[in-house]
Amino acid sequence: MTKTLILLIAPILVVSVAATAGADAADHHARGMATLDIIVGGDVQRRLDSLTDIAPELGTWIADFAYGDVVSRPGLDLRTRELATVAALTALGNAQPQLKAHINGALNAGCTPTEVIEVIMQMAVYAGFPASLNGISAAREVFAERNITVENAAK
Amino acid sequence: MTKTLILLIAPILVVSVAATAGADAADHHARGMATLDIIVGGDVQRRLDSLTDIAPELGTWIADFAYGDVVSRPGLDLRTRELATVAALTALGNAQPQLKAHINGALNAGCTPTEVIEVIMQMAVYAGFPASLNGISAAREVFAERNITVENAAK
Amino acid sequence: MTKTLILLIAPILVVSVAATAGADAADHHARGMATLDIIVGGDVQRRLDSLTDIAPELGTWIADFAYGDVVSRPGLDLRTRELATVAALTALGNAQPQLKAHINGALNAGCTPTEVIEVIMQMAVYAGFPASLNGISAAREVFAERNITVENAAK
Amino acid sequence: MTKTLILLIAPILVVSVAATAGADAADHHARGMATLDIIVGGDVQRRLDSLTDIAPELGTWIADFAYGDVVSRPGLDLRTRELATVAALTALGNAQPQLKAHINGALNAGCTPTEVIEVIMQMAVYAGFPASLNGISAAREVFAERNITVENAAK
Amino acid sequence: MTKTLILLIAPILVVSVAATAGADAADHHARGMATLDIIVGGDVQRRLDSLTDIAPELGTWIADFAYGDVVSRPGLDLRTRELATVAALTALGNAQPQLKAHINGALNAGCTPTEVIEVIMQMAVYAGFPASLNGISAAREVFAERNITVENAAK
Amino acid sequence: MTKTLILLIAPILVVSVAATAGADAADHHARGMATLDIIVGGDVQRRLDSLTDIAPELGTWIADFAYGDVVSRPGLDLRTRELATVAALTALGNAQPQLKAHINGALNAGCTPTEVIEVIMQMAVYAGFPASLNGISAAREVFAERNITVENAAK
Repeated sequence: MTKTLILLIAPILVVSVAATAGADAADHHARGMATLDIIVGGDVQRRLDSLTDIAPELGTWIADFAYGDVVSRPGLDLRTRELATVAALTALGNAQPQLKAHINGALNAGCTPTEVIEVIMQMAVYAGFPASLNGISAAREVFAERNITVENAAK
Repeated sequence: MTKTLILLIAPILVVSVAATAGADAADHHARGMATLDIIVGGDVQRRLDSLTDIAPELGTWIADFAYGDVVSRPGLDLRTRELATVAALTALGNAQPQLKAHINGALNAGCTPTEVIEVIMQMAVYAGFPASLNGISAAREVFAERNITVENAAK
Repeated sequence: MTKTLILLIAPILVVSVAATAGADAADHHARGMATLDIIVGGDVQRRLDSLTDIAPELGTWIADFAYGDVVSRPGLDLRTRELATVAALTALGNAQPQLKAHINGALNAGCTPTEVIEVIMQMAVYAGFPASLNGISAAREVFAERNITVENAAK
Repeated sequence: MTKTLILLIAPILVVSVAATAGADAADHHARGMATLDIIVGGDVQRRLDSLTDIAPELGTWIADFAYGDVVSRPGLDLRTRELATVAALTALGNAQPQLKAHINGALNAGCTPTEVIEVIMQMAVYAGFPASLNGISAAREVFAERNITVENAAK
Repeated sequence: MTKTLILLIAPILVVSVAATAGADAADHHARGMATLDIIVGGDVQRRLDSLTDIAPELGTWIADFAYGDVVSRPGLDLRTRELATVAALTALGNAQPQLKAHINGALNAGCTPTEVIEVIMQMAVYAGFPASLNGISAAREVFAERNITVENAAK
Repeated sequence: MTKTLILLIAPILVVSVAATAGADAADHHARGMATLDIIVGGDVQRRLDSLTDIAPELGTWIADFAYGDVVSRPGLDLRTRELATVAALTALGNAQPQLKAHINGALNAGCTPTEVIEVIMQMAVYAGFPASLNGISAAREVFAERNITVENAAK
């Protein structure tokens, strides 16, 4: 039942992001913070600050450029963007904290646990089984933190 | 007008792949060849043979395991799967022939040129500008071969 | 003259493995589980399940495809296959849990600690000293768990 | 019983290599050039010079350190060392010229075409199909240069 | 004698970039284009356009963010920044066109050919000999285009 | 004021390393240990032994080849060499212990915290934000161990 709800909400979510992006193309900081707010699930400024404390401009670039200029763009919905990021970070296999953050981000953006798992499993083909298994480990930790049970995830 | 058509066809495409997958779960070879036929755009056996001539079982694994077992799975539509693969191969940056094949695959599966470009641009954030620029080079070659003009692609 | 000797011995080694593999070429699941049993050292199903709990088909693919279809093949003995895997995972440097598993796997398949260490040291040439040092860290942990002393290992 | 046989044969193989290496442990340059002569198949100095013309010490390091100190070591035979290198370079996927050189090197060191192909195919499991396919492309070029036919290679 | 000249010029170059950066912190586009003009050696807009024709915003991001926000920053001189980039791209080994561009960029920013070669050679230690050799290949091509002879480079 | 002091000391440091390198080109072990002594900040032999206990020749290669032959070379000062190494290891993203060691090494060689942070931030452009963020994490740990405060670092 919950899952049906997510499927209904997802298209609305996409449209709303595209609308925001189009409404005020100049203000990339506000747009970046809004997109980050969806992905991170709130408390954005504090989390950014804790990551980039000794390099504060890096936090600015993440908000303004990475999420304000790039990830907020229309042309591709946020759910697919997050799945693409999960795919890339699983394949690279060298950024486990960011992979966990984007598994959370994909779920926060409206992806189902199944979609996340499918993308990670698929990476076994393109980046090998070790990369895929370490992606599954990251998902296991995120799912546990969110009380997503195995039955909900793999079905 | 063509683009609208693609958007209408895409959901149907997804459903039909899922149906095939469910209809005959045992026959992973036939399912893999059917999925490859969509991605490659026909002539699958000859292309597989030319890639794996000196390692024929590798061709079998690609058909049966990679596309029959993994990429044909329900739970995620083929369009998103191909975009995830484009993301991963752009980020890895060490498999240019396969990246070109999957840019073609994404388009063959019903993705728009814009969606492909958006995924590749997004990789600038997660894998750096060189990876993204080399992904754009791959897309440029594929688009030229398919007579996709810049105006159609980036708008 | 030494080289001629090696060439004569090598086919015997290969053939003996091929005979085992050829005995039941059809059953890739059974074959994969048997190969995994050597590499993992028993308790295969439970270990696979714990790795792939939220993605059970991934466990099936590892058993049937990765170890049933690929690693069980004749043409190369299991000891050399495990050393090749240790080489690759040391060089990639982004899959430490799997590297530890295959250092164990190499030892379980009959490789000496020296052979494992030599392969990891050699990666300093092809993937740099950091990759090699992190491979040595993985070996140190595995050797400690198996009570392999430094004297046994490096001599 | 098969395994016992392998363990008995292995030390002989190692010792024969160790004898050569031990004959003149001090002279790592001569030892490196001798090992390179086997791998490269003659004409070593000219080839090294053409690779490292604008960085001549790099050529010295390759001869003295990489092949004199590391690859010439006893403890692992040259055939297995070359297969380990082919595995690593196939998995890394970013050093195609060196991969070709070491496919040649493996064959020059006495590996069969089948063994080389098996190692490259196996990398599909640990580094993904694109890496393995690009390794096969490298092998195809080398085999063509050496007039190794498909029948000889894959059988 | 030429080298002494370069050492004298270098500090001035550094200061001038820092001054530009400080003078108008808001205008990151102008600053990015000015820094790119030094690195690329003129004709920036046309070159950017040819790289990002099907993804024009990518060109904007390179000018405004990559070179306007990041590479133009004070705190590290442009020569060292370019050497750091040459180091990273040599080590990654998967972005040969960009590596060539930044070998040119390092020379344009005032680095000596020797400094460029030293950084590339050093990567043999941290990323392995294949990465370093492919970096040398890139440098050889750039040096040939600029008529830098071997004697000037390696001495 | 501290920064001015460092800038004055740096050239002296460079010259002294070059002098040692030229004084006794044959003795690469002594030269390597001397360079490592600067980078590691003393206690070199014990640290090397703890890293390479089960592969002691690896420790010899690090001292004699990596630091004696390569990193001690004239043609590039040690400060820039360490920044290049920090750049490469941040970009590769798969050798966190060595990245921490070389952040320490850069500081020990006379780099300012700002220079280290600038190089790591710059990698966001060439290797993506996850690589840069994980580099910042490594720097944060090193800075904490050395009681370098945020104010000192980022200003």
